[in-house]
Amino acid sequence: MKVEYINPFLKAAKNVIETMAQTKVKHAKPLLKTDAKTSGEVTGVIGMTCATVTGAMVLSFSESCILHIVANMLMEPVREKVDADVVDAVGELTNMICGGAKAELSKLDLKFELATPTMVVGKDLEISMFSKTPTIVIPFTTEHGDFVVEANLREKN
Amino acid sequence: MKVEYINPFLKAAKNVIETMAQTKVKHAKPLLKTDAKTSGEVTGVIGMTCATVTGAMVLSFSESCILHIVANMLMEPVREKVDADVVDAVGELTNMICGGAKAELSKLDLKFELATPTMVVGKDLEISMFSKTPTIVIPFTTEHGDFVVEANLREKN
Repeated sequence: MKVEYINPFLKAAKNVIETMAQTKVKHAKPLLKTDAKTSGEVTGVIGMTCATVTGAMVLSFSESCILHIVANMLMEPVREKVDADVVDAVGELTNMICGGAKAELSKLDLKFELATPTMVVGKDLEISMFSKTPTIVIPFTTEHGDFVVEANLREKN
Repeated sequence: MKVEYINPFLKAAKNVIETMAQTKVKHAKPLLKTDAKTSGEVTGVIGMTCATVTGAMVLSFSESCILHIVANMLMEPVREKVDADVVDAVGELTNMICGGAKAELSKLDLKFELATPTMVVGKDLEISMFSKTPTIVIPFTTEHGDFVVEANLREKN
């Protein structure tokens, strides 16, 4: 995966969470995914494809992190557990972050179309991409817990 | 979701599993997904999009079902548990079934591009689509267990 594909996801994730959820976000250095473990308890998956590149993005939150983000987004008290509204919010955030990355990637002349986000709720999941291209992991921290963005974009044959 | 979008997934799933894994497959009547539960322990998710329609397909196997399918595909003894080869096979099957559906859908003048499959391993998951269009579930049975194909295709605004 080309290095210039990473920054659009990093910028979009930071921008969307800080804007939509008034939540300060710090990122660590992006790294290559070396196993199938994904830390989060609520995860959004979205496919993206353009004429020359195909891929997918994963957005995975710890429970505490997403409960606080959703409380800020909806201006409501922090829920005790993940419910349908929280799952829906993860779908929305997945769409928005991938949409933000898509806008940045269009500056590299890549006109992506986004597929429908799919949300997965559950602990102790293993999530992996069916691609020979390595997956990039961008770890983020907030005051109330962590989330990650994973991206895999590969040139079509 | 239009009724004529369902059959391409049904035909492709039956055809791919019967051909690739020499496994006899029966399907039950397709139904609307009414909750977020997805029965399988190994699941493939793939996004698909074309000029006018966007969506995703989920393919989810019980453990016993996929272990027997993979044994037939690789002509090897049945494994005791899900390992990296099994997860890879689910990615491949997700690609092939969605590719088969894509070929059928092209007869309706829909030229889909497929994204990268993402595989999820874990029990007691909840999987849902971020879409106001209902998700169609097609239940399949084999001699060694069940699998489902879920599809959600919606017209773009």
